[in-house]
Amino acid sequence: MKIPTDPAVSSCELPTHAASTLAGSRVLRFQRDYRWEGIPVSEYKQSAESWYGVARMALVGETGERTRFHVRYFEIAPGGFSSRESHRHEHAVIVLRGRGVVELGGERHELGFGDTVYVAPHEVHQFVNPTSEPFGFLCIVDAERDRPVLAPPS
Amino acid sequence: MKIPTDPAVSSCELPTHAASTLAGSRVLRFQRDYRWEGIPVSEYKQSAESWYGVARMALVGETGERTRFHVRYFEIAPGGFSSRESHRHEHAVIVLRGRGVVELGGERHELGFGDTVYVAPHEVHQFVNPTSEPFGFLCIVDAERDRPVLAPPS
Repeated sequence: MKIPTDPAVSSCELPTHAASTLAGSRVLRFQRDYRWEGIPVSEYKQSAESWYGVARMALVGETGERTRFHVRYFEIAPGGFSSRESHRHEHAVIVLRGRGVVELGGERHELGFGDTVYVAPHEVHQFVNPTSEPFGFLCIVDAERDRPVLAPPS
Repeated sequence: MKIPTDPAVSSCELPTHAASTLAGSRVLRFQRDYRWEGIPVSEYKQSAESWYGVARMALVGETGERTRFHVRYFEIAPGGFSSRESHRHEHAVIVLRGRGVVELGGERHELGFGDTVYVAPHEVHQFVNPTSEPFGFLCIVDAERDRPVLAPPS
């Protein structure tokens, strides 16, 4: 699915279009290559000024649920990176696929499966994939949140 | 860590005691056997009237963060099961380890890695591990939530 993207938009706020509004309990089936049945994927190949090679899938919270949070799966292609940015709202990130790096408050941390990152309010952060395999992680945020502010390159 | 448990308490609300209140951004390192550095684990061997063999780890949201959500990792031992219950608040569950079964609104679904479950308000649900290996999953809930109501055995 190709989604038109404002070149200034953060990779964290990349829009996804659900096929329909879902209702009621459900099981979203995991498929090979880290996709979920019925969940649209934003186009991998698009990019913007601040990020490159980021795909986004909205798993829970954006299709009619009443949760105070959204659960998204992000995947960064080899050589890709998310926007370097900050915001008041917090991130909870859990790595599911591959390996990557997070810059967090000026420090770099290598990440692998299960490693969990808490990004505090207004902390400048960026996720980078220097490997040759996809780097994927869950990112959970408040449903009501402020817009990210892009930070200058490190 | 042995934590005294009210025998009537839901396995979803099993108390965990953090070693200290954390502050600021951080990386919680995943350790082998699905544990996280510095995160206390409620005792596996305890049980209550409504559940058996459930361990709980609080990853994000219960140690001074301001998120509107809590991210917890639950692990159900072979032969174990969570409380059969319902509540107004919703669950978002993502399987990380092993295989298990969820009963959801009267239907049973087998679950494996990456499968994602949305439990709608007031839906009766129970997680069961009929396998010989641990069954582990992330469970994300609103920080402010109602207390579960136990449901009769199915």
